[in-house]
Amino acid sequence: MGAAAKGSTTRGKSTAAAQSTAQSTPKSTPQPTPPSCPLGREVLGLFTWSFLHTTASHYPPSPTPTDRLQITNLITSLTHLYPCTDCRADFKESVSKNPIEPHTKNKNDLMIYLCKRHNEVNVKLGKKEFECDPRLLDERWRTGFKGCET
Amino acid sequence: MGAAAKGSTTRGKSTAAAQSTAQSTPKSTPQPTPPSCPLGREVLGLFTWSFLHTTASHYPPSPTPTDRLQITNLITSLTHLYPCTDCRADFKESVSKNPIEPHTKNKNDLMIYLCKRHNEVNVKLGKKEFECDPRLLDERWRTGFKGCET
Repeated sequence: MGAAAKGSTTRGKSTAAAQSTAQSTPKSTPQPTPPSCPLGREVLGLFTWSFLHTTASHYPPSPTPTDRLQITNLITSLTHLYPCTDCRADFKESVSKNPIEPHTKNKNDLMIYLCKRHNEVNVKLGKKEFECDPRLLDERWRTGFKGCET
Repeated sequence: MGAAAKGSTTRGKSTAAAQSTAQSTPKSTPQPTPPSCPLGREVLGLFTWSFLHTTASHYPPSPTPTDRLQITNLITSLTHLYPCTDCRADFKESVSKNPIEPHTKNKNDLMIYLCKRHNEVNVKLGKKEFECDPRLLDERWRTGFKGCET
């Protein structure tokens, strides 16, 4: 990979907090740092995974070649530029072992793919895994479970 | 653009809250929704801008061609896939008028470029603009202002 992000977020106190669990239980979800301070690695993970899962939940059921290229490029860019060195290395290895392209054929496959990548992080950190069921993922990230309505 | 993200986050109550102000004052910074519910468009904006500014703050002073391609691909992918229809259209127009590629030559240029794109959103929403000074941006997103230390 390129030398894109040699720096690393260092405010997270421990390596174990390297990445977030946006899809795990509320109790273990990290809270954002104060708004005028840099993101710690855990909050950066929360923000980024949340963005990715939300993006997947709005991905089309029948994507165009352009859609497929763009989501592939997005994930690939993270393996180069994600601004947490350890997290990026782990993500790069995971994507290398599990190429995204075959999983860009429809929304459900993409949601499951990202859920699995995120669960690898959750397992590493000893956190609860999310069930990679497309119905549950769509509710979690797009339509909302009962009680989420405002 | 592709038909990637026809859906839109709809939980934000108003169009005026379409995008976030992660770089504006603490008072106007939106708070995350409960962790088990989908992100509203304002929180989605906060998370995504924060990720982007953090990524820029870790971008190298002298990037490789791969670094430059990857950050260009990341920004381009957002103009296709960002899961908020209105926000995506505005961002796509902004990037079309202000192509990113010439601003990928070094970290400072990239930070300033993203700051300007974000400020366009802040102006649209009547929110405070961030001063696009690379020293301030680096402190905001990487090193931390005085008082940020933990």
